[in-house]
Amino acid sequence: MTSLRKDRRLDAVPLADVSIDDSFWNDRLETNREITLEHQYDQLGDRCLRNFERVRDGKTGGFRGMWFEDSDAYKWLEAASYVLATHDDPELKARVDEVIELVAAAQDENGYLNTYFTLEEPDARWTNLYMMHELYCAGHLIEAAVAHHRATGEDSLLEVATRFADHIDDVFGTDEDDLDGVPGHEGIELALVELSRVTDEQRYLDLAQYFVDRRGREHSRLQWETAHPDETGGDVPPDIFLEDGEWDGSYAQAHEPIRAQETVEGHSVRAMYLYSGVASLVAETGDDELYETLETLWTNMTTKRMYVTGGIGPESAHEGFTVDYDLRNRTAYAETCAAIGSVFWNHRMFRLTGESRFYDVLERSLYNGVLAGVSLDGTEFFYENPLESLGHHHRKGWFECACCPPNVARLFASLGAYVYAQSASDDIYVNLYVGGEADLDVDGQSVTLTQETDYPWGESTSIEMETESPVETALHVRVPPWCENATVRLNGDALDVEPEDGYVVVDRTWADGDSVTLDFSLPVTLVAAHPDVPDDADRVAFQRGPLVYCVEETDLDDAAPSHLRIDPAGDVETNRRDDLLDGVVTLETVARASTTENWEGQLYRSYDETAGESREAAVVAVPYYGWDNREQGRMRVWLPTV
Amino acid sequence: MTSLRKDRRLDAVPLADVSIDDSFWNDRLETNREITLEHQYDQLGDRCLRNFERVRDGKTGGFRGMWFEDSDAYKWLEAASYVLATHDDPELKARVDEVIELVAAAQDENGYLNTYFTLEEPDARWTNLYMMHELYCAGHLIEAAVAHHRATGEDSLLEVATRFADHIDDVFGTDEDDLDGVPGHEGIELALVELSRVTDEQRYLDLAQYFVDRRGREHSRLQWETAHPDETGGDVPPDIFLEDGEWDGSYAQAHEPIRAQETVEGHSVRAMYLYSGVASLVAETGDDELYETLETLWTNMTTKRMYVTGGIGPESAHEGFTVDYDLRNRTAYAETCAAIGSVFWNHRMFRLTGESRFYDVLERSLYNGVLAGVSLDGTEFFYENPLESLGHHHRKGWFECACCPPNVARLFASLGAYVYAQSASDDIYVNLYVGGEADLDVDGQSVTLTQETDYPWGESTSIEMETESPVETALHVRVPPWCENATVRLNGDALDVEPEDGYVVVDRTWADGDSVTLDFSLPVTLVAAHPDVPDDADRVAFQRGPLVYCVEETDLDDAAPSHLRIDPAGDVETNRRDDLLDGVVTLETVARASTTENWEGQLYRSYDETAGESREAAVVAVPYYGWDNREQGRMRVWLPTV
Repeated sequence: MTSLRKDRRLDAVPLADVSIDDSFWNDRLETNREITLEHQYDQLGDRCLRNFERVRDGKTGGFRGMWFEDSDAYKWLEAASYVLATHDDPELKARVDEVIELVAAAQDENGYLNTYFTLEEPDARWTNLYMMHELYCAGHLIEAAVAHHRATGEDSLLEVATRFADHIDDVFGTDEDDLDGVPGHEGIELALVELSRVTDEQRYLDLAQYFVDRRGREHSRLQWETAHPDETGGDVPPDIFLEDGEWDGSYAQAHEPIRAQETVEGHSVRAMYLYSGVASLVAETGDDELYETLETLWTNMTTKRMYVTGGIGPESAHEGFTVDYDLRNRTAYAETCAAIGSVFWNHRMFRLTGESRFYDVLERSLYNGVLAGVSLDGTEFFYENPLESLGHHHRKGWFECACCPPNVARLFASLGAYVYAQSASDDIYVNLYVGGEADLDVDGQSVTLTQETDYPWGESTSIEMETESPVETALHVRVPPWCENATVRLNGDALDVEPEDGYVVVDRTWADGDSVTLDFSLPVTLVAAHPDVPDDADRVAFQRGPLVYCVEETDLDDAAPSHLRIDPAGDVETNRRDDLLDGVVTLETVARASTTENWEGQLYRSYDETAGESREAAVVAVPYYGWDNREQGRMRVWLPTV
Repeated sequence: MTSLRKDRRLDAVPLADVSIDDSFWNDRLETNREITLEHQYDQLGDRCLRNFERVRDGKTGGFRGMWFEDSDAYKWLEAASYVLATHDDPELKARVDEVIELVAAAQDENGYLNTYFTLEEPDARWTNLYMMHELYCAGHLIEAAVAHHRATGEDSLLEVATRFADHIDDVFGTDEDDLDGVPGHEGIELALVELSRVTDEQRYLDLAQYFVDRRGREHSRLQWETAHPDETGGDVPPDIFLEDGEWDGSYAQAHEPIRAQETVEGHSVRAMYLYSGVASLVAETGDDELYETLETLWTNMTTKRMYVTGGIGPESAHEGFTVDYDLRNRTAYAETCAAIGSVFWNHRMFRLTGESRFYDVLERSLYNGVLAGVSLDGTEFFYENPLESLGHHHRKGWFECACCPPNVARLFASLGAYVYAQSASDDIYVNLYVGGEADLDVDGQSVTLTQETDYPWGESTSIEMETESPVETALHVRVPPWCENATVRLNGDALDVEPEDGYVVVDRTWADGDSVTLDFSLPVTLVAAHPDVPDDADRVAFQRGPLVYCVEETDLDDAAPSHLRIDPAGDVETNRRDDLLDGVVTLETVARASTTENWEGQLYRSYDETAGESREAAVVAVPYYGWDNREQGRMRVWLPTV
């Protein structure tokens, strides 16, 4: 366990300064821009934008969709803004401006902005913080505004967001006239920190601190509301905040003050957004105690409550965490948004510390739990990401509660911001092996890094430095734990440098054209889970590089994944298959397969009778992210051993 | 697959003619009578009986509890009546009479009886069949009335029930003035058949037939109601009958006519009550087509959708069935009431056919899925019966929706009725090894059977015949599939008779004092599940006799059940332990146990690294029914093999 090291705080190299050109990601990101974003925009029209239009036109009633439908527009605006930061797209720009105009036109004189309450319950504003999501929507508005401002330099949406933030700042607080409450769904905390950064306004930071510190205190507004549902707006019953009729705030991490919390609890997306906000706050305030809380929570999550895919939150009933080692596979909820939230949080934890372990989790989540969330063609989405299926779980085009698709879109569109970072002393960090260019400022000098890699399939990455005149800096290249035997070449010649704490560091004066190549191996690993995880006991999962693999029924010859037993001593062949799933490396081995021949009409038999009823079966494992993109069928990540 | 054999229809030897005196059941049944029933009565007072009082006193409003709270009184009355059938208990009798008086006083002039609607929504009667359970409560009233009449010969409750049944008969039907609908929660069908039997009234049978045949037709009343929730009473939203906003009646087995159904679907208690009702109906009508439907459904359930404990319905969200081979263990719902419902159904299937396979399922459910539902002391109950626990699942004293405890009580109180049966030709069937006496009529002659056994621990049962003069009859003694090497002795001498179709048959002229002894072995079986059940792949469960075993953390030395791997070739010792769990036979073996020593701070490691990290561990397995009666901890039924 390490402490917050204030001298090591880092900044991401901004999205606008990174262009991705990568054999793995190009197609996904293009699909995200061209298909997913368009698909999402189409979904907005009939419900979300129509609500804004009705408010603009002074109408009442007729609200469509979920009560937090506004957030769909904001998430789309945020994703579109990230695209505009990296791509010149006048058509998209015009569409963004149109939506911003519509959003602005729906804002109240006093800054308030929420189409559900304005259309349906204008007198009930701020009466139901536990579930009606006004602050959550405000958070997404602010995030979109910050992204839009950073991408375009324009203030059109930022003005809307600051007016709403100012209104919220007026309404909330601990003074006698203030409403003293916190959001039932977090998100505004991290947004307010970003807003304070782009506006340089301390009061937004203070408001974020207020929302963080007031959460979980006794006799809170949330608690009061759940005891007085008749006095709250909306019609969502408070059941989820009640346990045997008594207040239980854990669903929204409001069961005790954050500083007292030691385990990740409740709705997992809420938790990730909260912890991300706390980490952002700590970056500004250097609050050691809050940082220690984050360390404790992170350790609990990553050592007891996280799937091998980086997915989190096993339980569907409250979309969240349950108890240590509950990592049920087939009924895993593991919401796509929660894995995305984990990426947000881990990115911030890295920036607080410069420690690679946060990127190990981030990369695991990104390449598995998140990437599985969207189909290869970019138009269908998983909300839940089980690690096993009986063949009945499939992606859908959209959801009534459509939080996941736009969340994937905004993460993918901002992927560039996750690749590089710089420390206060301008050390350069390469955290993901993603090809492309990054423009950096090192000691006031422009430097361009060009990364070339075939990761996650190939076993090397090269970084070339373009600089007008020699520049002195330490280049930290992350070596994930799954990249073994890493060796470094400088301009082609072996360099005697070993990875330390997850990085190889090449600290020198760099001339134009200098290049560092990292060679490593990506062996196939059979992963075992902690013996306290009952669902994975005596089972293994295939992993190669950051990718967790699964077995799909369509790749088996007359067998189901549940029939297989893997021989841990067996050879596993890797095959580059460009024809499969837009190009993957498959893992192929021979396993034992139970047969169902003698089972006709029987569900249970004596184990003795079944002995010998097995055969050899060729197994082709494919990356988990690619499952359910072909013929539908059964799937399994964790397989028993012979 | 066999067809309904009309010549083999059997009657249970009635409860009143069977007295149980059995080393295994005596304590459980006494606890049921003395503790559970009393405990339940105490629970009735504050909510259920108070509702009846308010109606009696002409009050309005103030209804307490669930909208089907009335059924708690009826279930208690039914259980208490069963006790009165077998035990002389004037105090209980007086209390039963009091409750009956209260129920009768709450009945409307026209026969209607439901305290929720009468107190809260008198104008909304019969407007919400999909969820407001008026017909379900009526069913329980009728069942209680039949039990009370059979036990006491009195008509006090039967009159109430028949008046309500007559009213229902007036209201429902296919004529123009009739309400044409079926209950959203079945139960009244089987009750009406019983009512027709005790009253000899065809119209109750016709009404049962109507409710069975009208279920699942298109454009039904249920479908109409869910599309018009504003026009229905109560405030339960119709969501559970909607799939993506469209009608889906499968929750209540109303997705298609019963004759078209091929898989067990929806809420599992509803399903069991419906199939029980259909079986009762078939017993009266001999409808071959309906019987074939039951066979198809039974085969689907018992070969693809039933836990090794006899539990059914894995999913909590709709308390019911999902898809073939979905037998998740730790998150199994497997409601106690559903296992009880399966007992009801299988009892009826046996009586239609005389086939032992139905008792194999009944016995499995009874000794595992049902028996686990109540604590050894009779005061705490499981609603859900998972086959694995991380240590957080425990019995509770009562539930807001308290269907399970009284259901256990009424089953236990009527256990005697499940032991013996007689065919039309007066053949005698001994279906359960439960000690005690039964008075039978064979060809007009009184015969008393006395069964002595130490089952499920001991390996024999003896049946002695008391008869004034010799009587000719075939005695069919069931030999469950887990009782191996069964041999028969007649008056101590070996008899050359082999079990056939699950029975040994001794057909002879019996003299007073003749006895048949069945000796068998109860070997420990390691059970394997069908390879298509992913949760049990490569795992085994211990079974001895009808009892499925589990491993509880409290019996392990510094290990959790999930650490264990069983050696299928290892010796398993059986130990009679009178000090444990009110006396059990434990199964003891030595297993391999993973250690958690090198896992500190890690959730996933390379399988290679973990190789060799295991030790020998002594394992004590206890009957599943007895789990969570001692120190709380982790539990597991299915264990991986070495």
